Amino acid sequence: MSCIDEKYMKLALELAKLGIGNVNPNPMVGAIIVKDDKIIGRGYHKNYGGPHAEVFALNEASNNSKGATIYVTLEPCSHYGKTPPCVIKIIEMGIKRCVIATLDPNPLVAGKGVKILEDAGIEVKIGVLEKEAYLINHIFFKYISTKIPYLSLKCAITLDGKIATRSGDSKWISNELSRERVQELRHKYMGIMIGINTLLADNPRLNSRIAGGCDPYRIVVDPNLKTPEDYNFIQNNSDKKSIIVTSTDNLTNNKYQIYKEKYNITFIFLEKKRFLMKDILKKIGHLKIDSILLEGGKSMISMAFKEKVLDGGEIFISPKIIGDSSAISFFDGLIIDKMEESIKLKNIKFKVYGDNVSLKFRMS
Amino acid sequence: MSCIDEKYMKLALELAKLGIGNVNPNPMVGAIIVKDDKIIGRGYHKNYGGPHAEVFALNEASNNSKGATIYVTLEPCSHYGKTPPCVIKIIEMGIKRCVIATLDPNPLVAGKGVKILEDAGIEVKIGVLEKEAYLINHIFFKYISTKIPYLSLKCAITLDGKIATRSGDSKWISNELSRERVQELRHKYMGIMIGINTLLADNPRLNSRIAGGCDPYRIVVDPNLKTPEDYNFIQNNSDKKSIIVTSTDNLTNNKYQIYKEKYNITFIFLEKKRFLMKDILKKIGHLKIDSILLEGGKSMISMAFKEKVLDGGEIFISPKIIGDSSAISFFDGLIIDKMEESIKLKNIKFKVYGDNVSLKFRMS
Repeated sequence: MSCIDEKYMKLALELAKLGIGNVNPNPMVGAIIVKDDKIIGRGYHKNYGGPHAEVFALNEASNNSKGATIYVTLEPCSHYGKTPPCVIKIIEMGIKRCVIATLDPNPLVAGKGVKILEDAGIEVKIGVLEKEAYLINHIFFKYISTKIPYLSLKCAITLDGKIATRSGDSKWISNELSRERVQELRHKYMGIMIGINTLLADNPRLNSRIAGGCDPYRIVVDPNLKTPEDYNFIQNNSDKKSIIVTSTDNLTNNKYQIYKEKYNITFIFLEKKRFLMKDILKKIGHLKIDSILLEGGKSMISMAFKEKVLDGGEIFISPKIIGDSSAISFFDGLIIDKMEESIKLKNIKFKVYGDNVSLKFRMS
Repeated sequence: MSCIDEKYMKLALELAKLGIGNVNPNPMVGAIIVKDDKIIGRGYHKNYGGPHAEVFALNEASNNSKGATIYVTLEPCSHYGKTPPCVIKIIEMGIKRCVIATLDPNPLVAGKGVKILEDAGIEVKIGVLEKEAYLINHIFFKYISTKIPYLSLKCAITLDGKIATRSGDSKWISNELSRERVQELRHKYMGIMIGINTLLADNPRLNSRIAGGCDPYRIVVDPNLKTPEDYNFIQNNSDKKSIIVTSTDNLTNNKYQIYKEKYNITFIFLEKKRFLMKDILKKIGHLKIDSILLEGGKSMISMAFKEKVLDGGEIFISPKIIGDSSAISFFDGLIIDKMEESIKLKNIKFKVYGDNVSLKFRMS
């Protein structure tokens, strides 16, 4: 039985992943309904605020649901949110058995769905492919429990760990295949964050160029409000997704008024004397942005590593060597005597992109 | 037919590779004898000066050889060297057809073997899996045609391209799996070369720790003859494989006399004002050392890159970050403004060793 349960849960997880990038800050969820070892219904959470996976699956199975088993990657909801509770529909449709990968970490739901199902006489099994289900929703699990966005690093480095030459040239360190992968990453995270130096150097558009991709929030950390008015970041804000993180000193700055009123830029203010990444993240969390891809340069990356706020990331390594001590490293500023004191990235996975390799890591 | 030929040549290449590390400066060669689509003989060149692959294969096939096809990864020899010419034996044993992967680049042999076989009425086919056969013997092909050893880099770096902390600590950058692989590399190359700084810092034994592994020549580049008498490099020289590369200034140095006479150290002298890697390599080539693994630190690696004398190498990348601009980079000293001017490693292959990845490259 457990083998069969894993088989169907795996399919439910595959379905869940189809929601990537479109459901945040909701979780990705997949559901499959099985009767007499045949799949009679399937569904996944397609977009934020839309029907849940269970609803699609139950609708497909229709009257056949009676006596069937439902596989869901996350505990079915029991509260009235944007949609009616799924547990009610599961009971009403006559489901006999419910297999769940992970309990919902949302305090509004956790365990309550299971209890309602069990009270209605449905056999409930919990924890099938739990780890896999947790990993596909690591963003959701972190955000729901901390309200702090999941912070993921993306950078492209040479073999000698540089992100640009001494003159600031970085075109191109990584190859085309790697750069395509970055577009996928931009789709996965709700926001992209860079520092003012990267903005000034590249005047980037920070959009997702994959078909059907939803553009992320664009966040620039700009303590002294140096962002120029004619840059893409200010001019291309019809979706109102440009956010500037700056110091409270700029509350009286003329630019602030113009950017806010004329261009609908969102502002986050921090005290200049305590301009910390963890405070930035907390304030971004308040905006219901559950995940950020950090694409910044040396100062942003160094800040994130030093404050230990990175949750994971993907570093693209290119077989190029600058060999110039004045070239710009991706991270700097520590004083390390012993190798034991060095930063160790964890849960490493490599993926080859032609002559580049990406190193994926998760810090927990 | 060509499909069948490739199939058997592939097997011959696999056999050839069994000679790795034991045949230098001879090539690795494999041979297979096939009759009625059955393998009736197989052989490979096992050790320097020993019988050739063809001899083993023909001996196994014995009288059955009559009318058979022989597959050889390198043109059979036609001259009397350490062994009698293989072409004579092939003809005598009644082989009908001879399939060859690559012609011998040795001017004493090139094309001559083929001509003798053809003159004897044997059908000869050349070039089956030629590229593969060339690649397994890239050391041999380079050395035979230039008399300059094949120079391969090995180094282990952090993600930020460092080989040691500011205090010189490098234990450990790479993981155990990577370090085991290094032992295999040491077996593959005839010599290991380091700089005096690495010698002073690590007092390394520079031996091959794999079972049945042949210890390589140990070469230290030490312009000012700083190598201490009590170090492994001097003390453990019972095999007479320790070589010091130093400046002619030390011809009158007392240490030179002692190291040479008491410890049998071999010396290579260069003018101090023209202490170039390419001259070092030329002189090492005179010692019939066909290949060198460069395990040196920053100055040696920088020298090799700047003089463009590296033929290839393997760089082990570890998921650690030192993040200290005073840590020691693996290569330094260039002034690069544009990414286009950076050094591009070629023919890249990645291999994962747990949480390390190795980047193999060949510059041609």
